[in-house]
Amino acid sequence: MYYIGVDLGGTNMAVGLVDENGKILHSDSRPTKSASRPAEAVLEDMADLILQVIRDSGHTLDEVKSIGVGSPGTIVSATAELVSTCNLDWHHVSFRNELQKYIDKPVYADNDANVAGLAEFVAGASQGLENSVFLTLGTGVGAGFVIGKRIYAGTHNVGAEIGHMNIMADGGEPCPCGASGCWERYASATALIREGNKACLAHPESAMNAVTGGDPEKMTAKVVLDAAKAGDPAAVEVFNNYVRYLALGIINIINILDPEMIVLGGGVSKAGDFLLNAVREEVARRVFYDEVAYASIELAQLGNDAGIIGAAMLGL
Amino acid sequence: MYYIGVDLGGTNMAVGLVDENGKILHSDSRPTKSASRPAEAVLEDMADLILQVIRDSGHTLDEVKSIGVGSPGTIVSATAELVSTCNLDWHHVSFRNELQKYIDKPVYADNDANVAGLAEFVAGASQGLENSVFLTLGTGVGAGFVIGKRIYAGTHNVGAEIGHMNIMADGGEPCPCGASGCWERYASATALIREGNKACLAHPESAMNAVTGGDPEKMTAKVVLDAAKAGDPAAVEVFNNYVRYLALGIINIINILDPEMIVLGGGVSKAGDFLLNAVREEVARRVFYDEVAYASIELAQLGNDAGIIGAAMLGL
Repeated sequence: MYYIGVDLGGTNMAVGLVDENGKILHSDSRPTKSASRPAEAVLEDMADLILQVIRDSGHTLDEVKSIGVGSPGTIVSATAELVSTCNLDWHHVSFRNELQKYIDKPVYADNDANVAGLAEFVAGASQGLENSVFLTLGTGVGAGFVIGKRIYAGTHNVGAEIGHMNIMADGGEPCPCGASGCWERYASATALIREGNKACLAHPESAMNAVTGGDPEKMTAKVVLDAAKAGDPAAVEVFNNYVRYLALGIINIINILDPEMIVLGGGVSKAGDFLLNAVREEVARRVFYDEVAYASIELAQLGNDAGIIGAAMLGL
Repeated sequence: MYYIGVDLGGTNMAVGLVDENGKILHSDSRPTKSASRPAEAVLEDMADLILQVIRDSGHTLDEVKSIGVGSPGTIVSATAELVSTCNLDWHHVSFRNELQKYIDKPVYADNDANVAGLAEFVAGASQGLENSVFLTLGTGVGAGFVIGKRIYAGTHNVGAEIGHMNIMADGGEPCPCGASGCWERYASATALIREGNKACLAHPESAMNAVTGGDPEKMTAKVVLDAAKAGDPAAVEVFNNYVRYLALGIINIINILDPEMIVLGGGVSKAGDFLLNAVREEVARRVFYDEVAYASIELAQLGNDAGIIGAAMLGL
């Protein structure tokens, strides 16, 4: 049997036909266009893309066991309902009800970070482990927990909002959530961009300025990371601070959840071993335990495919 | 069948005969005297106390299914081995091997906070809930997680070290663990004592000084809490700050684990509704979610009995 996985994003939706080992056999994508049409129309289009992917793969609907959707936002997994999400301005949309208007298969849905964590558990870095935490270091910081070899999304499906763990009780950077001092203000790509721009103003000679031409709009996490890799002192300082905050949150996760592995995914993780080695060193230097083992820290292995693979595996 | 529960502390060990509903039928205690004798002698004495409690209860060893021990420190539950603990200066002590020299029954062991969380799940505030977090607000801050109706102690049995969650990334109060800014420096009885003493120096007129006679050694969490209840302005300020930090950590737990319930136990929780209402209000004011439900916050119900009951229930 095969499984359909859908990776729903604000810009594009990607659909793949996946086997039971988490291998994508065929995939395709379309623009989501959620600004110009209602959720119902987007999901009709999604059903159409699913049927097209199955046809193009050379397989038939009879061979498909289920459909899984990974979506940003708060998802009630039991009913495959999206409660709300900033990225799409959708409220209380049932993936199950909408997709089953067109395709008579079981439909599952979960949060995109949970789904990516599941994908790494089925076919990536944390394959087969009992307890793991997947972190997506992007615009914010998201997390997917696998506890006892199953997605753990909390009682009210709002668990793993780890980006809003407060690490600055007496102040800190304001967060769009309304609080101040949330971890993602310090450990996301957004943090690298903000601090990179500050460093460019303070250090006009920085190699980062040469790349952006002094335009803050052109600053990216990659600009900072590349300049730090090349040894630019201003970028190195931004990077070291970033690693310190990232490691602090990872140590909090270790102290609270004590998983077997913490997997780093999302845009920032593309810095690869440069980031990984720095984070491992900082965690080792600061972690609470010396007599006992603690979580290993690894890079995600599935990249953008994690969305499709993990969504498909919801039906496994 | 009945279950033996042992609550091992640095000062006393308490043993109880417990039924399958978590009801203590008979219990007794002895001094631990761990400073004056080796672990082996303490555990021989523990076995003797267990046999005495069974006799005194009017039941027989044949009616006892298992022995469970709740102990401070890092416990490998699979082998019932204590790795280390600050309170007893014991290292790599096997409760199972030692107790089975004297009593031929299955022996289980777990961390005292995990065990208290289990007790509240079996017979207390969080009875029967899928996911709950028990917090013990004492000298430090400990936690017991029940996830999927089972104790969750992490992969390396060092999970739920939630007291060392860092909430002051850029500094904060130093902690005996070596780090600075650990949550328990702000949310424990120790924090109330420290801040109570500071407030006494700054406000000689405080009602707290009248109780302690200005002797910092006589300051307790209860002195601060009673004075705050009575409206003493200096104590109210200490209490409000304490509640702010306690609530911040609770919100972190909600954002990360999203349990059904968070149960407040330990010495500070004896302040009862005065504490509970203040914490609930502060959490409601600051929590991230408005569209969805989040964990309820309740007081522990079993008090000191939680140690015996939870330890006994390890064999259930």
